[in-house]
Amino acid sequence: MRTPSPKQRVFIEAGRKEFVRNGYGAASIRAIAQEAGVSLSALYYHYKSKQDLLLAILLDGVDAYDAVCDAELAGAGDDPLEQLRAFVRGNVVFRTKFPEHGRMVATEVRNLEPEGARLYEQRRRVGKGRIRDIIERGVEQGVFTTRHPDDCRRAILAMTSAIANWYDPDGPDGPDEIADRYAQMALALLCPNETIDRPRGTEGSS
Amino acid sequence: MRTPSPKQRVFIEAGRKEFVRNGYGAASIRAIAQEAGVSLSALYYHYKSKQDLLLAILLDGVDAYDAVCDAELAGAGDDPLEQLRAFVRGNVVFRTKFPEHGRMVATEVRNLEPEGARLYEQRRRVGKGRIRDIIERGVEQGVFTTRHPDDCRRAILAMTSAIANWYDPDGPDGPDEIADRYAQMALALLCPNETIDRPRGTEGSS
Repeated sequence: MRTPSPKQRVFIEAGRKEFVRNGYGAASIRAIAQEAGVSLSALYYHYKSKQDLLLAILLDGVDAYDAVCDAELAGAGDDPLEQLRAFVRGNVVFRTKFPEHGRMVATEVRNLEPEGARLYEQRRRVGKGRIRDIIERGVEQGVFTTRHPDDCRRAILAMTSAIANWYDPDGPDGPDEIADRYAQMALALLCPNETIDRPRGTEGSS
Repeated sequence: MRTPSPKQRVFIEAGRKEFVRNGYGAASIRAIAQEAGVSLSALYYHYKSKQDLLLAILLDGVDAYDAVCDAELAGAGDDPLEQLRAFVRGNVVFRTKFPEHGRMVATEVRNLEPEGARLYEQRRRVGKGRIRDIIERGVEQGVFTTRHPDDCRRAILAMTSAIANWYDPDGPDGPDEIADRYAQMALALLCPNETIDRPRGTEGSS
């Protein structure tokens, strides 16, 4: 699937609104066309089914996520610590800027048909690969001392995703403050304090 | 709403299956009655609408969560550190044992009508209060050194919730191993390693 045209982007935004509001099963293609200000046939010209539009919306979310993360990572150099900070910042920015993307993922990915689901998972794997690589190199270089990199990766993704559930654009903290705190929490997980009653038996690099 | 009767429990299980599969909007009350092996009117006798059944299912999830957490916390004594471990263990047990509860929450809470949503939120607040209190007392007693207890609380809830997305009952790690690791991660967040380039300016207990 290619990058959506400006017209397609209008359909994607309208579809996202309707899906988030009513769920895929109950969502009305007619309501989406109306929201987009076009005829039903104009919408069907671009997306031949509700399923097609769902996939386009979910892939658009992945595009947005990739763009934000890559922009942050572009200035981070080679140091895993700086890359981790940039990655966390990218995730925080994405979750505060586009909270509805996460909602779509939580509620609508289950409605993808097998082919779309495969394509979507394949595209998401790229995103998950970023943090996997950063952590892996950090552990290799001894920058990150965790013995459970997979748990840390999952925890970092989960805790940043959840920001969309409580972030308030009018609240006291902006994305910058939140990103700093979450980067510190990610580091706390990756470099745990060995003095908290932790058995030190299996410690050490490889 | 009172505890469901054994018969109501059958409806709740059947409804959860149908809602998780098709979403609230598209879910069929007829299919739920069929799955439960009763007539449509028998189902309506207990739940007067799809909305009523949705609320009952979501509250049943809260009941299950409360029961698991309380059981773990019952043996934890007064020490915030032990209570934190018990709380994390309860969350891990709940997420590995009842992954579909979290899926219902992620996808269907948005479909509650205002009165049900209020009731549901009120019931959930109890659960959120447990970890809030544990962290608060741990910070007061100097057991937890974080300067960002709210962030830690949200991170701990988010990272344990996400376990339902990847946990495999046939995988190498059982709930016990996962609970131990996640308790360590929760402690890493609450007692961060101050040596990782962190400004120490505002440190200290009150």
